[in-house]
Amino acid sequence: MIPLKFFDDVMSLKRVPRSGWITYRISGHDVESVSSHSYSVAVIALVMSEIMRSRNQKVDVEKVLKMALLHDLSESLTFDISKAYLRYLGRKGSVLKTRLERKAASRILSDLQNKQLARTFRAAIGGYSSSKTLEARIVHCADALDLLLQVIEYERMGYSKVTLDPIWRETRSKLLKYRLPLGNEWSRQLQRVRTGLDRKRRRAKSRSLAVKRPGYGRLRLG
Amino acid sequence: MIPLKFFDDVMSLKRVPRSGWITYRISGHDVESVSSHSYSVAVIALVMSEIMRSRNQKVDVEKVLKMALLHDLSESLTFDISKAYLRYLGRKGSVLKTRLERKAASRILSDLQNKQLARTFRAAIGGYSSSKTLEARIVHCADALDLLLQVIEYERMGYSKVTLDPIWRETRSKLLKYRLPLGNEWSRQLQRVRTGLDRKRRRAKSRSLAVKRPGYGRLRLG
Amino acid sequence: MIPLKFFDDVMSLKRVPRSGWITYRISGHDVESVSSHSYSVAVIALVMSEIMRSRNQKVDVEKVLKMALLHDLSESLTFDISKAYLRYLGRKGSVLKTRLERKAASRILSDLQNKQLARTFRAAIGGYSSSKTLEARIVHCADALDLLLQVIEYERMGYSKVTLDPIWRETRSKLLKYRLPLGNEWSRQLQRVRTGLDRKRRRAKSRSLAVKRPGYGRLRLG
Amino acid sequence: MIPLKFFDDVMSLKRVPRSGWITYRISGHDVESVSSHSYSVAVIALVMSEIMRSRNQKVDVEKVLKMALLHDLSESLTFDISKAYLRYLGRKGSVLKTRLERKAASRILSDLQNKQLARTFRAAIGGYSSSKTLEARIVHCADALDLLLQVIEYERMGYSKVTLDPIWRETRSKLLKYRLPLGNEWSRQLQRVRTGLDRKRRRAKSRSLAVKRPGYGRLRLG
Amino acid sequence: MIPLKFFDDVMSLKRVPRSGWITYRISGHDVESVSSHSYSVAVIALVMSEIMRSRNQKVDVEKVLKMALLHDLSESLTFDISKAYLRYLGRKGSVLKTRLERKAASRILSDLQNKQLARTFRAAIGGYSSSKTLEARIVHCADALDLLLQVIEYERMGYSKVTLDPIWRETRSKLLKYRLPLGNEWSRQLQRVRTGLDRKRRRAKSRSLAVKRPGYGRLRLG
Amino acid sequence: MIPLKFFDDVMSLKRVPRSGWITYRISGHDVESVSSHSYSVAVIALVMSEIMRSRNQKVDVEKVLKMALLHDLSESLTFDISKAYLRYLGRKGSVLKTRLERKAASRILSDLQNKQLARTFRAAIGGYSSSKTLEARIVHCADALDLLLQVIEYERMGYSKVTLDPIWRETRSKLLKYRLPLGNEWSRQLQRVRTGLDRKRRRAKSRSLAVKRPGYGRLRLG
Repeated sequence: MIPLKFFDDVMSLKRVPRSGWITYRISGHDVESVSSHSYSVAVIALVMSEIMRSRNQKVDVEKVLKMALLHDLSESLTFDISKAYLRYLGRKGSVLKTRLERKAASRILSDLQNKQLARTFRAAIGGYSSSKTLEARIVHCADALDLLLQVIEYERMGYSKVTLDPIWRETRSKLLKYRLPLGNEWSRQLQRVRTGLDRKRRRAKSRSLAVKRPGYGRLRLG
Repeated sequence: MIPLKFFDDVMSLKRVPRSGWITYRISGHDVESVSSHSYSVAVIALVMSEIMRSRNQKVDVEKVLKMALLHDLSESLTFDISKAYLRYLGRKGSVLKTRLERKAASRILSDLQNKQLARTFRAAIGGYSSSKTLEARIVHCADALDLLLQVIEYERMGYSKVTLDPIWRETRSKLLKYRLPLGNEWSRQLQRVRTGLDRKRRRAKSRSLAVKRPGYGRLRLG
Repeated sequence: MIPLKFFDDVMSLKRVPRSGWITYRISGHDVESVSSHSYSVAVIALVMSEIMRSRNQKVDVEKVLKMALLHDLSESLTFDISKAYLRYLGRKGSVLKTRLERKAASRILSDLQNKQLARTFRAAIGGYSSSKTLEARIVHCADALDLLLQVIEYERMGYSKVTLDPIWRETRSKLLKYRLPLGNEWSRQLQRVRTGLDRKRRRAKSRSLAVKRPGYGRLRLG
Repeated sequence: MIPLKFFDDVMSLKRVPRSGWITYRISGHDVESVSSHSYSVAVIALVMSEIMRSRNQKVDVEKVLKMALLHDLSESLTFDISKAYLRYLGRKGSVLKTRLERKAASRILSDLQNKQLARTFRAAIGGYSSSKTLEARIVHCADALDLLLQVIEYERMGYSKVTLDPIWRETRSKLLKYRLPLGNEWSRQLQRVRTGLDRKRRRAKSRSLAVKRPGYGRLRLG
Repeated sequence: MIPLKFFDDVMSLKRVPRSGWITYRISGHDVESVSSHSYSVAVIALVMSEIMRSRNQKVDVEKVLKMALLHDLSESLTFDISKAYLRYLGRKGSVLKTRLERKAASRILSDLQNKQLARTFRAAIGGYSSSKTLEARIVHCADALDLLLQVIEYERMGYSKVTLDPIWRETRSKLLKYRLPLGNEWSRQLQRVRTGLDRKRRRAKSRSLAVKRPGYGRLRLG
Repeated sequence: MIPLKFFDDVMSLKRVPRSGWITYRISGHDVESVSSHSYSVAVIALVMSEIMRSRNQKVDVEKVLKMALLHDLSESLTFDISKAYLRYLGRKGSVLKTRLERKAASRILSDLQNKQLARTFRAAIGGYSSSKTLEARIVHCADALDLLLQVIEYERMGYSKVTLDPIWRETRSKLLKYRLPLGNEWSRQLQRVRTGLDRKRRRAKSRSLAVKRPGYGRLRLG
């Protein structure tokens, strides 16, 4: 039997906005969906895993991808719970968030009507939350990296750097917490890209426009 | 070094619409992004794989997920090439589409600036295109199932059944081609859901509205 | 000193979507903002109050309007907490929602940096939550009536009646709870409008289209 | 010297919505722009002109196209003045509309800073308003035909037939006023398409969904 | 009997855009609705009233709130008449606007089908237009303050300061006309916020990005 | 018989986005439709033609307008084929694009079910592609000028100058290729407008905001 209710939940993530962006004054139309976000997290985590493998680290890629695909599944029920608000509640806030999300995940997984499958998926979600394994740390880093890349995307569109600054800084420090060399290295490089982005813009403004390509292409190389 | 250009391509999929839906008169605002679609394909393929595993079939889940995540990557360059049009070109059309997408994939993978990684990813994309392995057939089925589920989503919103009929029928026959028992079984069940959806609507209209809950929940169970 | 932070919160309600509609498959673009909703609630409550006054009931209109304007203020922080989800938590869910909203309201009111004003506003919000006074019951009814009117609006656009049925029924029974004769009377009339809307549609379909105006105008009169 | 102000006005028509559709409950996102509308009017008028030519009628195509391209230019200033409202003012309303639009056109044409050109364009706009020449009647018919075709488009998306009925009927009678055989003929055919559209939908609902293609393609052939 | 037609008009304000923003190149998607605007005006007017009360001025808050809620009601019929255009007509333009809006208000109030209520509401709308009472001046100031706050909102999103400058300056001088000390005081403070906003941005650009939080929170305090 | 299928194709251009803008990070909501673009091209080409006529050049305006109206018709089938991608294919890319568009045009014209008309329209499209006649060069220039004007529009909204630079420069050099004195003259003037736009912005930032109107009006005069 096709687990239709479960798939309904999965499909609904296409319509659930990452509402946190509203706080940072991104237009409703440009706010990404939860599934768009989860896709990028999965691809970033995949690239990280393969690079770490090539550096002779042992990574269970299947486990990484499962975590990445399932880590925001609960948001089909809870929507994207306002971090801005929960932060205000202090430590209680994040405890609450975790509890709400765990309950929601349970209900969604029960819709699979397949106990074995539910168990496998619950393990993946639980593993992600506990942040203990290498695989979980990779996905947490990918989650943060997607957010940093998205800030850069929004700034390239024309959204305000000043308005986006707090979420950028907050996410960078969060990323450090997972102490993954690759994550830290990339975070530093993204910082340079963002600064360069800014420098480029100021320079472009402070000289004639007749100059040779200030180059969007090169810009992307940081 | 962070493969920034590659990630730019991945991020841009959040902004690339699945433009095929425009042909079926879905409002621009409700057209899903390529990354939203790819996410659902990956989760559906994951569920299929696990169920097949539990039926003692051997499935390489890592391979399945890589294919699902990378199968539409070329669209960050080509955008969603109009199938409506290519169909008109006949067999040449699909040859052309394949060629354009392969070239685009090559360019995107070269942005990884990491030959080993590019090779791994090219293998996944190539494997998907050739449709030979069980893993590729699972992802092709998941690709079609996501589309059928999306049609049902749009019809539940209020989009016209008549207008969506051709894409529904075309996708169902495409699904059969991959001869996966699970895919065929689910396709039949989705047909019943869609018919039931229709019946429910007519019935709801042909009697008083004071009735007991025709039940959205139950409706979803077909 | 202008209470800028407080006004920031008020202004942000223009951007906060009533996300509950997403559950009922309303397109993101057509989902009303919290401030749009609060405006209608205030006007409906005003009309109710004046009609009750003309029937010689004593109503404190200033109090009614303050409650209506402030009752969803907390959503500038909490966003529109998913009722779909909280319902799943049972009684605990609504307790939790109340607690989250009260805390959020406190923080927002502290941004007024004017203790006297904060006290006045807190009294209005508190009075609304307790639902004891006639004024609070009027606003609660207006809150439900706006939702019923909005369902009719969405159905007139073309959104699916079947999909919207659960929220319609749930809101109608909620409305009864406040035992306001005017609210009950209007709720029954809206039921007839919705049924008529449906009948009109079926009739329009079951005869030639060359008929004399089935009349949109008349339709609105139920 | 490039007539920049004039072009600013022309470009702004891409952002000016045909707000009349809001009255008929079309979602803001699906409301066409004034320039999109003017484009279709021009192409429809072109096709009409060429067909009439081939029937040996003398048509000044250059004149037709100028009228079609310029007839809504004033809306870059006035926006799309609500016909729903002006109708309420009775005959005074349409006099007022004409006067407002003529004044606006004058101001826009003065931005051309080229008297000869302004005169040529004023002649085209004036000729359209007076509705005397064959060319003006062609453009008026094309204006109405575009609206009828757009109603069919919206209904194919899923918008409500009942809600759109008044504008359909009103436009059909307006079309008759211009007594152009081709216009009347096409209007009758569009009526059959719309009726067929409706029949098709009902039939599709009253039998099994397993039927052979109710055929979107054929439907379009009326 | 529920005054359904009147409520239809009220509900439609959720869909009527404040089209004046289009002139200032705000994206259609970010243009607020008339009801969103009216909500903010009502809350701002409420805060002003309470502060003036606490300074021992006598304010009829019920009257203030009625005016705020009803002052743009006519726009459900007239839509948001383009000020850009009427300004061009000079003094005649504003006379015309007033006349159009009064007529529209009459028709909407007649939909109440309740003469006493219509009279009460007409008094509120008339009182607002004449601008004579303290209450009317408060609402006019609140109307202007909402616009200034909205300009700041749009600039924080990334909309162009240069493009928004004319509406900012025009609104500030309009505000002065109502000679309300509180309004003038707040207008000056908002000017400082906007200037600070600008300074902050320039400073953020002219030094390294590694600085301590330029602080979004503090920024809001000007 | 009304050529309904042909008109379906024409109407669908209102829904086909100029997807090239996505590459330059314009929000999906602000991307113009193909018909909006074609309208502006037609008006610009009309103004160019009339000015050239007044300079005693012989221009066939009917021919110009037909080309302008029909030049992007094929996109109702092909959608807006990604130039970003075809450029990557080198010379082969543009050959391919031409071939795809010609085939699409053929199919659309066959929907006219009127051989004579199809021939007339094919001649117009063919004439445009070959770029040989003065009329074709005018339309090609108008096509490029609309794009430059649109870049300025987007920058006035707040979109990023740095991101839009490549398309601006590429289009300016393309424009030169058609060696039309009027086109070159206007291109230079637009360059000054854009530079001025930039200067204005920097100046506005580098002095107090209390200055006299930096004047949006004047800005538009370059």
